[in-house]
Amino acid sequence: VAQLQWGGRFTAPPDESLLAFGSSLEEDLVLAPFDVTCSMAHVRALRGGVISDEHAAWLIGALEVVAREIDSGAFAARARAAGAEDVHGAIDARVRELAGAAGELLHAGRSRNDQVATTLLLYTRDRASSAGATARATAASIVQRAREERDAGTMLAGCTHRQPAQPVLLAFVLIAWAEQFVRAARRFAAVGSIAAEVCPLGSGALAGSTLPLDRAGAAAALGFTAPSRNALDAVGNRDAALDLAHSYVRALVDASRICEELIAWSAPAYGFVRLADRASTGSSLMPQKRNPDPFELVRARASSMVGAYAGALATLCGLATSYQRDLQETKAAVISIVERSSSALDAFGRAFDAVTFDRQRMSSTAGDGYTIATDVADALIANGATARVAHMLAGAAVVRAESLGRALDESDVAEAAVQLGASDIHAPLTPEASIAAKQTAGSTGWAMVGDQIASLQDELTHLSAGA
Amino acid sequence: VAQLQWGGRFTAPPDESLLAFGSSLEEDLVLAPFDVTCSMAHVRALRGGVISDEHAAWLIGALEVVAREIDSGAFAARARAAGAEDVHGAIDARVRELAGAAGELLHAGRSRNDQVATTLLLYTRDRASSAGATARATAASIVQRAREERDAGTMLAGCTHRQPAQPVLLAFVLIAWAEQFVRAARRFAAVGSIAAEVCPLGSGALAGSTLPLDRAGAAAALGFTAPSRNALDAVGNRDAALDLAHSYVRALVDASRICEELIAWSAPAYGFVRLADRASTGSSLMPQKRNPDPFELVRARASSMVGAYAGALATLCGLATSYQRDLQETKAAVISIVERSSSALDAFGRAFDAVTFDRQRMSSTAGDGYTIATDVADALIANGATARVAHMLAGAAVVRAESLGRALDESDVAEAAVQLGASDIHAPLTPEASIAAKQTAGSTGWAMVGDQIASLQDELTHLSAGA
Amino acid sequence: VAQLQWGGRFTAPPDESLLAFGSSLEEDLVLAPFDVTCSMAHVRALRGGVISDEHAAWLIGALEVVAREIDSGAFAARARAAGAEDVHGAIDARVRELAGAAGELLHAGRSRNDQVATTLLLYTRDRASSAGATARATAASIVQRAREERDAGTMLAGCTHRQPAQPVLLAFVLIAWAEQFVRAARRFAAVGSIAAEVCPLGSGALAGSTLPLDRAGAAAALGFTAPSRNALDAVGNRDAALDLAHSYVRALVDASRICEELIAWSAPAYGFVRLADRASTGSSLMPQKRNPDPFELVRARASSMVGAYAGALATLCGLATSYQRDLQETKAAVISIVERSSSALDAFGRAFDAVTFDRQRMSSTAGDGYTIATDVADALIANGATARVAHMLAGAAVVRAESLGRALDESDVAEAAVQLGASDIHAPLTPEASIAAKQTAGSTGWAMVGDQIASLQDELTHLSAGA
Amino acid sequence: VAQLQWGGRFTAPPDESLLAFGSSLEEDLVLAPFDVTCSMAHVRALRGGVISDEHAAWLIGALEVVAREIDSGAFAARARAAGAEDVHGAIDARVRELAGAAGELLHAGRSRNDQVATTLLLYTRDRASSAGATARATAASIVQRAREERDAGTMLAGCTHRQPAQPVLLAFVLIAWAEQFVRAARRFAAVGSIAAEVCPLGSGALAGSTLPLDRAGAAAALGFTAPSRNALDAVGNRDAALDLAHSYVRALVDASRICEELIAWSAPAYGFVRLADRASTGSSLMPQKRNPDPFELVRARASSMVGAYAGALATLCGLATSYQRDLQETKAAVISIVERSSSALDAFGRAFDAVTFDRQRMSSTAGDGYTIATDVADALIANGATARVAHMLAGAAVVRAESLGRALDESDVAEAAVQLGASDIHAPLTPEASIAAKQTAGSTGWAMVGDQIASLQDELTHLSAGA
Repeated sequence: VAQLQWGGRFTAPPDESLLAFGSSLEEDLVLAPFDVTCSMAHVRALRGGVISDEHAAWLIGALEVVAREIDSGAFAARARAAGAEDVHGAIDARVRELAGAAGELLHAGRSRNDQVATTLLLYTRDRASSAGATARATAASIVQRAREERDAGTMLAGCTHRQPAQPVLLAFVLIAWAEQFVRAARRFAAVGSIAAEVCPLGSGALAGSTLPLDRAGAAAALGFTAPSRNALDAVGNRDAALDLAHSYVRALVDASRICEELIAWSAPAYGFVRLADRASTGSSLMPQKRNPDPFELVRARASSMVGAYAGALATLCGLATSYQRDLQETKAAVISIVERSSSALDAFGRAFDAVTFDRQRMSSTAGDGYTIATDVADALIANGATARVAHMLAGAAVVRAESLGRALDESDVAEAAVQLGASDIHAPLTPEASIAAKQTAGSTGWAMVGDQIASLQDELTHLSAGA
Repeated sequence: VAQLQWGGRFTAPPDESLLAFGSSLEEDLVLAPFDVTCSMAHVRALRGGVISDEHAAWLIGALEVVAREIDSGAFAARARAAGAEDVHGAIDARVRELAGAAGELLHAGRSRNDQVATTLLLYTRDRASSAGATARATAASIVQRAREERDAGTMLAGCTHRQPAQPVLLAFVLIAWAEQFVRAARRFAAVGSIAAEVCPLGSGALAGSTLPLDRAGAAAALGFTAPSRNALDAVGNRDAALDLAHSYVRALVDASRICEELIAWSAPAYGFVRLADRASTGSSLMPQKRNPDPFELVRARASSMVGAYAGALATLCGLATSYQRDLQETKAAVISIVERSSSALDAFGRAFDAVTFDRQRMSSTAGDGYTIATDVADALIANGATARVAHMLAGAAVVRAESLGRALDESDVAEAAVQLGASDIHAPLTPEASIAAKQTAGSTGWAMVGDQIASLQDELTHLSAGA
Repeated sequence: VAQLQWGGRFTAPPDESLLAFGSSLEEDLVLAPFDVTCSMAHVRALRGGVISDEHAAWLIGALEVVAREIDSGAFAARARAAGAEDVHGAIDARVRELAGAAGELLHAGRSRNDQVATTLLLYTRDRASSAGATARATAASIVQRAREERDAGTMLAGCTHRQPAQPVLLAFVLIAWAEQFVRAARRFAAVGSIAAEVCPLGSGALAGSTLPLDRAGAAAALGFTAPSRNALDAVGNRDAALDLAHSYVRALVDASRICEELIAWSAPAYGFVRLADRASTGSSLMPQKRNPDPFELVRARASSMVGAYAGALATLCGLATSYQRDLQETKAAVISIVERSSSALDAFGRAFDAVTFDRQRMSSTAGDGYTIATDVADALIANGATARVAHMLAGAAVVRAESLGRALDESDVAEAAVQLGASDIHAPLTPEASIAAKQTAGSTGWAMVGDQIASLQDELTHLSAGA
Repeated sequence: VAQLQWGGRFTAPPDESLLAFGSSLEEDLVLAPFDVTCSMAHVRALRGGVISDEHAAWLIGALEVVAREIDSGAFAARARAAGAEDVHGAIDARVRELAGAAGELLHAGRSRNDQVATTLLLYTRDRASSAGATARATAASIVQRAREERDAGTMLAGCTHRQPAQPVLLAFVLIAWAEQFVRAARRFAAVGSIAAEVCPLGSGALAGSTLPLDRAGAAAALGFTAPSRNALDAVGNRDAALDLAHSYVRALVDASRICEELIAWSAPAYGFVRLADRASTGSSLMPQKRNPDPFELVRARASSMVGAYAGALATLCGLATSYQRDLQETKAAVISIVERSSSALDAFGRAFDAVTFDRQRMSSTAGDGYTIATDVADALIANGATARVAHMLAGAAVVRAESLGRALDESDVAEAAVQLGASDIHAPLTPEASIAAKQTAGSTGWAMVGDQIASLQDELTHLSAGA
C-alpha cells in the first residue's frame, strides 16, 4: 500500500484500484521542486515557535537532499515505485525517511490544502516567467524578420476574407504578428504579478492554525508580498493558475492564426513560404511531399487547449467553496494545459525560424485581385467624389477591367474622371505607389512601418527589463 | 534520429525538438495491438496479387512476434528507446527488422492515412464493447440494490431543486440511476455498430491505389461489413471515434449527477449514505475526516471531459477535408477522453458498491418538508376542486402547519373540505400512504417499482445477449 | 405581475427583476406548437377517468384556438405582453381564459416537469426530421454536382496538409463531401427514433400521479412507442434533445471543413471557385471585393456551436437527478444550438448552390506539385522494388526535377529503372493517366467514382423512404 | 432589399435568405450608442483635412439625432424595418438620410473593420466599468453581512469535501465569498485599462489610409492613450473584448460556487438559509415548494457561459490574421456572454440580499462531525507529539466516540495524554473554544476575522476610488 498521509480513523485498507484512480502523481510530479521550496518556507514558519532550530536544520537538510534527487530523476522513480498518492505526499514521506524524528514535524500546522495552493502559485510564477520570455523572444525574432523584409521591400496582397484587399509590405504583416506576442508577454507578466501577491501557506485545511506559525516570514521567504487574508478563500483559490492557463490558451490561439497563414502560403498555389527541411515532414507513401507539420500541430493544439480550459473551468462550476477533491482534476487540467501549450509555443518559434519567404513571388502578386481599387476610389474622393460615388465608379472599373482580363490602368482613372466631371486625376496604379501613398500612422507606408518596428523594439526592451 | 517512414526527398535531418514535439507515441501506444491486427489484414489485401505467399508468411510471422512483444511490454520500451514518431511507424520498423526483405513490402499500397483510420476504428470497436459491458454491469448492480431496497421498504423525500417534493421509494431513485446506464449501454452498442460498418484500408493516402489490393477480403478479415466507399472521405473521417468519445462523455455526465447526490447524502446533514473505508479517504490534518473522494473525482472528470470533447471537435472545425496533421491532436484527444473516462466509469462502479444506505434515517425523513402536500391537493381535486384551487388550499395548509411547527394532518384536510363545501375527504397523510396511492405506470408506487425492476432486468439481459 | 402557475404558500410577490431574469419565454416560444400538442394528449390522458367528455371538449377547443393564435403570431405578442414566465405557463393561462371552468382542469395530474420533458421530445422529433431532410437534400445536390463534374472530367491536385498529394477527380472530392451529409442524415434519423421511444407525460413532478391517467393512450396519441418507465428519470432526462444538438454540431463541423476548402478555392491564388454575386458580399471600402461570407459564417458557427454544446453539457455536470432549475438553461442552450445550427445548415446548402467550379483552371493544375510521384513509385514497386526503395528513388527524382524546374517525365522513370536494374518500366506520367491507373474500389478511378455516385444515390433514396 | 454599404461591382442582388443569415443586427444593436460615439470621433479625424467644418457640423448634427433615436427606441425599430445588415450600416444609412450630401462623407477613410474594432472597445470599456461596480457592490454587501454575523457570533462546521472539517465563523465564510468578488472587480478594472490603450480608428480595412486623418485627435477624443500601432493587427484584434468576456465568465464561475452552497443550505437537511418569498419560486403541482431558483439559474449560467467562451475562442483558432467574416460570430458570441453574464451577476446580488441565515441552527451544528478533532491533535502536538502520532491518537478517539454515539470530551484527551506519557493536556473541546484558539493571521479567530473585514473594506474603498 502507498504511503498515505492520513488514515488514523480507518479500519480497512483502501481499494487498490480506487487508490490508483485517485492518484495524481503522474500529473503533479512537475510540481516537485516547487513543493520543496514551499516546504522549506514552512520550516521557516514553524521555526517561529513550533520546532527547534535543530529540528529545522534536519528538515532543511532532508529537503535539500530531495531537491537533488528531483534534479537527478531519482525522486520520480522512487515516488512511482512507492505508489505515492501525489507528489506532495511523496516528498513528505521521503523527508520522514531522511530526517528521522524531525521528519514527523514537517507537516505540523499545515494541510495538503494550503501546501498545494502555495506550490501551485510557485509553479505558476515560474511558468509565467518562462512563458513571458518565450513570447518576447518570438516577438523579437519576428520583428527582426520584419526589419529584413522592409529593407528588401517585399510586398504582398493584404487580404481580408482571404480575398486580395490592398497591397501591403510583408514587414507590415510581420509586425501584426509580433504585436500578438507582445500582448501575450504582457499577459504573462500580469499573471506573474498576481501569483506573487498573497501566500496561502499557514492557512491549514481551511480555518488557519492554533500553532504560532510565522506566516509573514514564510511569505517573504517565498517572494510573496503578504500572507493571504482569509484561509478558507486561500485554500480553494485557483485564480492565478487559471490565469496562467488562460494566457497560454490565448497565446496559442494567436499563434494558430499565424500558422494558418503560413500553412496556406506553403501551398504551391501561393508559394510564398518554404519551410526548411529540418522543420518539414514527408509522407510514407508520396515521395514528393513536404508538409508544414509543426504549424498544423500548433494550430490544432490551440483548439484542444481551448476545450481543455473550458473543462478546467467547468470543474469549478457549482463546486462548494473550500477544498473539494474535484480540485485535483482542475490542478491536473491546468498543468496539462501549461505544459502542452508551452511545448507548442516553443515549437512555433522554432518552426518560424525555419521559414523562408519567396520575396519575388510575393511581391509579384501584390497587385493581383485589383488590390489598388481602393486607391483609385480614394483618389476620386480626394477630387470631390463622395465615398459612395467613388466606390461605385471604382467598382465599375474593376468589372470592366476584369472582363478584359487586364489590370486597372490610367484609362480607368480617366473614365472615372469624366463621370465626375473632373480632370487630371492621379491615382497610384502600382502596389509600390499604393503603399507609398499611405500616410496615416499605423499604415503600411514605408516610413510608418519603420516607426512601428522601432516602437515594438522599444517595448520589447522595456518588457525584458521589467521581467 | 528516429526511424522515419519518409524522407526520400529531404536533404537535411529533422530538428530534434520539433521531431519530439511532433511525436504522438505516448498518446497512441494504446493502439499497438489494433495496428498489428490492421497490418495483418493488409497482408491479406496484398496477397490478392501484390506479394507472394512466402512473403506474406514472413510478414504474418513478424507481426505475431510484435503482438507478443506488445503484450509483454517489450515493444513499448523498444519504441520509446528508438524515438519512434508514432506507434504505426514503430510497428512498421520492427517488422522490417524481423521480416527481412519481406518487411519492406508491408507498406506497399497503404499510407499511414488509411492505416491510422482503420486502426482507430478497431480501437473504437474494442472500447465501445468494453464500455458497454461496464455500463451494463453498473446498471445491473444498481438494479440489484433497487430490488433490495424495495424489499426493505426504504423511503426518502424525493427532491426537485434540492427541496423536498414527494415521498418516494429509494428503489425508485435507484431505478432512475440505472436507466441512465442502460441508455449509455445502448449508445455504446450503437457506436460499436457504426465502427464496424466500413473499412478504410486500401484507401491509400487519399486517392486509392494502383495496386490490386483485395480490399473486400481485408475488410471481412477485420469484421467490417464492407470496404469504405470513397477513399478521400475514409482517410479523414473520425466519426466513429468521436461518437465513442461523446458516448463516454455523456455516460460520465450522467454518473456525475449520481455522484453529486451521493456526496450530498454522505454529509452528516443528510447521513443517508456511508461509504466504506476502502473507498474513502482521510485528511492529513483533520483526524476525523472520511471523504467521498472517488465520487468527487468522477464528478470533476465529467466536467473536464466535456471540455476535452469540445477541444477535439474544435480541432476539426474549419479543417480542410482529407488528412491534415491536426488530426494527430484529434486522435490524441479522443484516446485521452476514452482512457480517462473509462477509468472513471470503472471507479464509479467500484465506489458505488462500497455505498451503504442508512435505511432508517432515510425513511424517517421521507415526510419532512411537507412532501405529502401534493397528495392533499390531489385528494381535493378528486373531490371536485380545480387544480388551482386545490393548490391554493393545500399551500395555505402548509403555511399554517409550518407556523405551528407541525406536519399536515387530518385537521388540514377537514379545513380544506369546509372551504370546498365538501365533506369526508380522505387524503394520504404519511409517506407510506402517499407512495401507496400512486397508481400510474412509472410511478413510485410499490407495485409499479416492481414492474420497473423486472422490465429493466429484461432489457439488460437482452442488451447483454446482443453484445 | 405575470400569470404564475404557483404561489399558494407565498406571502410576498416576486421581485420583478428576478422574475424577468428567471423568464425563459424568449427562448422557449419556439416550443409553443409542441406544448399545444402535448396538452391535447394530456386531455386524452385525463379523459381516462379524471375529467368529463364535456370538459375535455372545452379544453380541446381552447387548445385549437391557441394553436391558431400561435400560427398567426398573436399568441407570442400576448404572452410577451403578459410577462409570462415561460411558454408552458402562457399556454396554460390562455386556456384558462378560453375554456372557463374546464380550463382549471388542464393542469390536473401533470407538472411542468413532465410537460416540459414531453414537449422537448416533440420538438426534438420535429427538428430531427427537418434536419434530416436538409442533410439529404444537401447530399443529393452535391451528388448531382459530382455527376456533372465526372462527366466533364474535372481534375485537381488532391491535397493532404494543403500540399499537393495525388491527382483526383473533382467528382471524387464532391463525393467525399456528400458522404458527410449522408452520415449526418443517418444521425438525425437515429435521434428521431430515440425521441419517439418513451413518453414522459403522466410522470408528474417526479413521482407519478395518484390520478388514473391514461398514460398509454397519451403516449400513443403523441406517436411514442410507450410511456416512460420511471417518472423520476423521465422528468430529468434530456438525452434526446442533447443528441439532437450534438448531431447538429457534428453536421456543422463537417460543413465547416467544406467551407474552409471553398473559401481557400475562392482566393485568386487558387481560382477554382466562383461564388455567384447573390451569395457574395463586398466591402464598404474596397470596390473590387467579392467575399465568400456565407461560408465564413457557417465555419465560425460550427466553432461557436461546439462551445455551446459543451456549455449545455456542463450545466448537467454534477447536477442532482430529477428537475433542477438549471435545466432551464440547458433547455435554452439546446434550443439555441438547434435553431442557430439549422439556419447555418440551410445557408450552407443555399450558398453551395451558388458555387461554380472553374473546370479548366482546376484541371490544369492537377499535376502541379509532382502529384504523380506516387504513381512512379508504385510502378517501381510493381517492377520489384520494395516500398522503401521505390519511395527513395521517386523522391530523388522529384528533387532533381524540381531543381531543373520541370515535371517528372520518362527520363526519371528510366533513371530509376537503371538504379533498380530493371528495364522497360512504364508509369503514368499525367494526371489523367494517374487517375486511370487507380483500380481499387473507393479510389478516384473514373469507373469507381461512377460506382460511388450510384451507391450514394441509392442510399439517399433509401434514407428518404425511411424518413 | 436592405441598405447595403457595398456593391459597386455586383450585378445580381443578394439572396434574401443568405442576407438574413448574414445579418448581425439583433446581436449588435446593443453597440449602437458606441458606434455613434465612434462615428463622432471619425468626424473629428476627417476634419483634420478631409472634410470642411460645415460638413463636419452637418455630420455631428445627424449623429446627435441618431443618438436620441437610439435612446428612444426609434432607431432600433427603424433599423429592423429596413432590414439592415448590422448596426454600423444602419447608423451610416440613417446619417445619410439626415445629413444630405455631407452624409456621404462619413465613411471616407474608414472601413467597417476599424469602425467595428473601435466600437467594440468602447462597449468593452463601458461594460467593464459597470461590471466592476456590480462586483464591488456585491462584495460590499457580503462584507456588511460578515460584519453582522461576526457580531452575532454565528458559527458553523466549515467543510471540505462537504464533510465537516473545523468550526468556523459564518463571517469567515462570507469573507471568503467577498474575496472572490474583489478579485473579479480587479479583473474588470484591468480590462477597462486594456480597452483604453490604443484606438484602431483610422486603420481602414487593414492597410491604413491615403487620407490625412487626424488619428491622434480621434483617439484622444475617445479617451484612448494613443492610436493603434499597426493597422492590420488593429482590425483583427479582439483581445480586450475577449478579456471582458473571460472576466465575466470567471466572475460567474465564482458566483456559481456560492450558489451551490446557498442551494444546499436552503434544503431542510441543513436549514441554514431561508430565501425570502420575493426571490423564491414555487411549483405548479406541489403546493409546499419554495425553490431557490435564482441561485440555480446563476449556477447553470456559469456553465453555459464557460462553453460560450470556449466557442468564441474556437471561432478564432486557425483564422487568418486581419478581418474574416468569422469575426462577426465572435462578436455576437462576446456580446451574448457579456449581456447574459451581466444579468446573472445582477440577479445574484439581488437574490443574495434576500437570504437570511438561521444563526441558531448553524451555530448549533458547528461541532457536529467531530470538527474539533484537529484541535485535539494540535494540543497533542503542542505537548510533544509528532504530527503523525497526534493524528493517529485523535483519529482513534473519534472512532471510539462515534461508536459510543457521543462527542469528543475530556476523557479522550486524557486517554491520549496517557498514550503520550504526558499529563495535563488541555484541548479546546467546543466550537467556540476551537475558534478562539486560532491565532494565525487569516484564520477564523474572532480578532482575525475583524482584521479581514477591515482590510477588505479598505480595499473596496480604494478600488471604488480608482474606478
